[in-house]
Amino acid sequence: MGSIDYRFERLEQPVDVAEYLFRRLYEVGIRSIHGLPGDYNLLSLDYIPKAGLKWVGNVNELNAAYAADGYARVKGISALVTTFGVGELSALNGIAGAYAEQVPLVHIVGCPSTTSEKNGLLLHHTLGNGDYNVFKNMYAQISCYVAKLDRPNEIADEIDHAIRECWLRSRPVYIMVPSDMVTEQVEGARLKTPLDLSEPANDSAKEDYVVDVVLKQLYAAKSPVMLVDACAIRHRCLDEVNDMLEKTNLPVFVAPMGKGAVSEQYHNYGGVYAGNGSHADVARVVEGADLVLSVGALKSDLNTSGFSYRLSQLNTIDLHSTHCTVGFSEYHGLAMRGVLRKLIERIDQTQLSIITTPQVKSDPSMYERQGPDSEVITQSWLWSRVSGYLRENDIVVTETGTPNFGIWDTVFPSGVTALNQNLWGSIGWSVGACQGAALAAKDDNVNRRTVLFVGDGSFQLTAQELSTMIQHQLRVTLFVICNEGYTIERFIHGPDEVYNDIDDWHYKDLPAAFGARDGQASTFVARKKSELEALFNDKEFQEAEGLQFVEVHVPKMDAPEALKLVAEAAARNNARAAK
Amino acid sequence: MGSIDYRFERLEQPVDVAEYLFRRLYEVGIRSIHGLPGDYNLLSLDYIPKAGLKWVGNVNELNAAYAADGYARVKGISALVTTFGVGELSALNGIAGAYAEQVPLVHIVGCPSTTSEKNGLLLHHTLGNGDYNVFKNMYAQISCYVAKLDRPNEIADEIDHAIRECWLRSRPVYIMVPSDMVTEQVEGARLKTPLDLSEPANDSAKEDYVVDVVLKQLYAAKSPVMLVDACAIRHRCLDEVNDMLEKTNLPVFVAPMGKGAVSEQYHNYGGVYAGNGSHADVARVVEGADLVLSVGALKSDLNTSGFSYRLSQLNTIDLHSTHCTVGFSEYHGLAMRGVLRKLIERIDQTQLSIITTPQVKSDPSMYERQGPDSEVITQSWLWSRVSGYLRENDIVVTETGTPNFGIWDTVFPSGVTALNQNLWGSIGWSVGACQGAALAAKDDNVNRRTVLFVGDGSFQLTAQELSTMIQHQLRVTLFVICNEGYTIERFIHGPDEVYNDIDDWHYKDLPAAFGARDGQASTFVARKKSELEALFNDKEFQEAEGLQFVEVHVPKMDAPEALKLVAEAAARNNARAAK
Repeated sequence: MGSIDYRFERLEQPVDVAEYLFRRLYEVGIRSIHGLPGDYNLLSLDYIPKAGLKWVGNVNELNAAYAADGYARVKGISALVTTFGVGELSALNGIAGAYAEQVPLVHIVGCPSTTSEKNGLLLHHTLGNGDYNVFKNMYAQISCYVAKLDRPNEIADEIDHAIRECWLRSRPVYIMVPSDMVTEQVEGARLKTPLDLSEPANDSAKEDYVVDVVLKQLYAAKSPVMLVDACAIRHRCLDEVNDMLEKTNLPVFVAPMGKGAVSEQYHNYGGVYAGNGSHADVARVVEGADLVLSVGALKSDLNTSGFSYRLSQLNTIDLHSTHCTVGFSEYHGLAMRGVLRKLIERIDQTQLSIITTPQVKSDPSMYERQGPDSEVITQSWLWSRVSGYLRENDIVVTETGTPNFGIWDTVFPSGVTALNQNLWGSIGWSVGACQGAALAAKDDNVNRRTVLFVGDGSFQLTAQELSTMIQHQLRVTLFVICNEGYTIERFIHGPDEVYNDIDDWHYKDLPAAFGARDGQASTFVARKKSELEALFNDKEFQEAEGLQFVEVHVPKMDAPEALKLVAEAAARNNARAAK
Repeated sequence: MGSIDYRFERLEQPVDVAEYLFRRLYEVGIRSIHGLPGDYNLLSLDYIPKAGLKWVGNVNELNAAYAADGYARVKGISALVTTFGVGELSALNGIAGAYAEQVPLVHIVGCPSTTSEKNGLLLHHTLGNGDYNVFKNMYAQISCYVAKLDRPNEIADEIDHAIRECWLRSRPVYIMVPSDMVTEQVEGARLKTPLDLSEPANDSAKEDYVVDVVLKQLYAAKSPVMLVDACAIRHRCLDEVNDMLEKTNLPVFVAPMGKGAVSEQYHNYGGVYAGNGSHADVARVVEGADLVLSVGALKSDLNTSGFSYRLSQLNTIDLHSTHCTVGFSEYHGLAMRGVLRKLIERIDQTQLSIITTPQVKSDPSMYERQGPDSEVITQSWLWSRVSGYLRENDIVVTETGTPNFGIWDTVFPSGVTALNQNLWGSIGWSVGACQGAALAAKDDNVNRRTVLFVGDGSFQLTAQELSTMIQHQLRVTLFVICNEGYTIERFIHGPDEVYNDIDDWHYKDLPAAFGARDGQASTFVARKKSELEALFNDKEFQEAEGLQFVEVHVPKMDAPEALKLVAEAAARNNARAAK
């Protein structure tokens, strides 16, 4: 349309801006819109049901952002509506997390009308300085694209481009909708053509070259292993990873953030590799391998037990969404999907040396260590028991703190989707994310269980999102690990300091206070191993359709071993360098 | 100290950076530090008790920011500690509110060590891109000063400068403390000299000139009035305002954000002026005045009932913290305090024409309108009754929504401090602010009541801050106005839309769930006028020392008249301009 003034252009099938936007979101698979109302977005919200979408109505914007993050991790993409200033800024930490963790999320912000902006009105929700772009500029730092829909003839293009960027780059985008633009009209005929979400192909010659190099190395290796991490999940390369495994029988390991990326029932699955935090058998095999084919690595401190990988770069092939490296050779602009596809196509499995890795089940020695007679629920006992409770196709959400480390010791049945926020690590995230994940499963019409493990300290930050789970009758079982505060912080610094304590809540009374009526929520308290064991074995508990809320009481200074290692590393990084 | 390398400088009385910082905060009047722990700030937190300060330990960072805002409004200044990334960004909306509303607040952010930053480590709570300054850059937009304490020889200067800027400009400052700098040493001897917080004096000749002009106009006027607004409170000019009233007997009115700035027991106090939202008698006097001496005006939409002032600029004298205007003449760099002080000194009250304004008590007609027999609690009845419940020196916190408008109809006993967030208008703010305000009163060792009026929709966003009130045994009486959702939004758009509904909580069960033990919290439900009346008249209720939680049930589509006017104006601004 270029520079043609839209007012002189005849629209073939005029539709309102908000309708266009929400119909595009429906098209890419979104079925529920998270967020809160505010006067600058109210007009937009009217279009949600018209586009076949549901309004979630979260309890606050940070929770809504966390929920949208969780929804996207299950459904592929999500959307969130907030209001100018107060609403969008409350959501900011949640969106920053989605940016860091590469989660595709469309953030729509209803803002004052273009006329109000032109006139510089001193409106509520502004900083009082007439600058209406401050918040947009903040968001530009944590969004892969920012669109302000203030030029009617560019709006449809802007919306399409933003959604495409969101999907392809797997990161949040920000769309600012002035209230007077909601009912502007754009060309609805465009909607007949679905958005092109296909990834640009790699340079074919470059791809061929790298695939040859990789094949040569794989054939030469005596004990090659695959290592799968977060970005393989975020950039939707799991089919490629699993096809590669099926074709090759290569032993495979996952980084903590990659847990769930490959089927843990795969015959040559070895467990979680996290440097020093790994099970000894895992470390032996991975660190002993003469070639590591790493897919989507994200080597953050918590994901590597404090940068404790013992792998040689010379023996590593790194496949990423934007580049690949083989040893020290770098290939920019080469995306992993194409490379993996071509590898699968060309690989001759007879030329591979396949070692067999013993699957590391939960370490029984951990259980023994507690003494078989003690009824105290310890972290090591807890996590060894969780594997048996989990079922096929569960969605498992773990919070920063003890759950994110404890979960390493579990083995997932097939089809499990695991959600964690290991890089960004914002405590409280998991409660919102759990709501979003469970709703995504419901929107997919699949009856999956969503299981949340969250510490009491983290839970308190976002507790009221229980209310949204109740309101939408989501199938969630929520374990609150009660250990009197911020245990992960205690291991880093100040084990007995008051700042690591929290207030003593009566957690199990919250579902009722947050509006659960008879039969809408069941609550349980487990202070003894036998109580939790009985619950895990209870058929009704296993199959419950609604909200289940379980307090699990564990000692204050108990933590998974891996957490202790990571905490030590964090304390070292925080300390003053010796002079 | 200039460019001298600190390592070659001998410190007379070395103190650790964190000690220096917290001792300075103590010096300016802070006694409690709000915030949450995080591994990058833990080392700093150890210094809080050593400096004679208390750690609050809020439930989440947004609440902590709101609480720090409330604390500063009562205590003069406040401080908040969060952690890098996740913590500080959760607080961002609260700090943006303090910036917009000109509240002085020191935000301390514990961040990764300078070594980690230099090495670009892929640490938790980063965006994964090696940029450690993204969040600081965001905060630069909503802070009047930003300090990163990464150069040891500049740290003491930076801390002093930041606190001074915070106080003088009455806005948030941001101090980033790398974890390895916490135990660096700075010159403690500096602490013997208190910070110079005195305001720079006005240019004396310019001040004289303007005071002469103002006096001439005041003497010539037949019906001059004073109008006091938010910035008079924020920039601590209330002594000057009240001295001026005492000396002159001028009739005085307040804008909604200025309510509480002057004693409403002053013989010539007239009530709240808010353009069309004013009581008819108030509008008659203010709009009929031939001169308005306006102090600290902040003419936002909600503070002026949608820009509906009917005052002529020619007949207005505007005194501000950074400039003054007389009619159309502008005097930049001239601060109101000096002008007011000189006016008080020089004014000859015998030359003034003083009209008497009838004090507008709550309008009895509103009460009558409901029919004396109905037991339904209406907004108009409620607010007419609140005046009688309030006592001398109460702190009254009102939330955006119906309470912020209803409160216009009350008359305060003397010494009442009123808190509202009329410009920024972030729902949920008042719950955190109430915690901070009540704690500030406690820290001042004065036994004031803190009374909160908050709508159910707003309350849900930040409900868990009740927990902090309980933990610190604060004297708070909290009225939750239960009207099934976002009533202010219903009046703007979508009165019956599901997006304006909220989940149906059992509010009064929350204090117990959030940890209140026997006797720590009393809860009440008022569904009828007689029930609320009985509570207001109950001596025990009036004098309670702990937490009191009252559900007040009012009809969904009832609101103070002023709110309806403002909602109409907002809807107009949001709509598309006619073509």
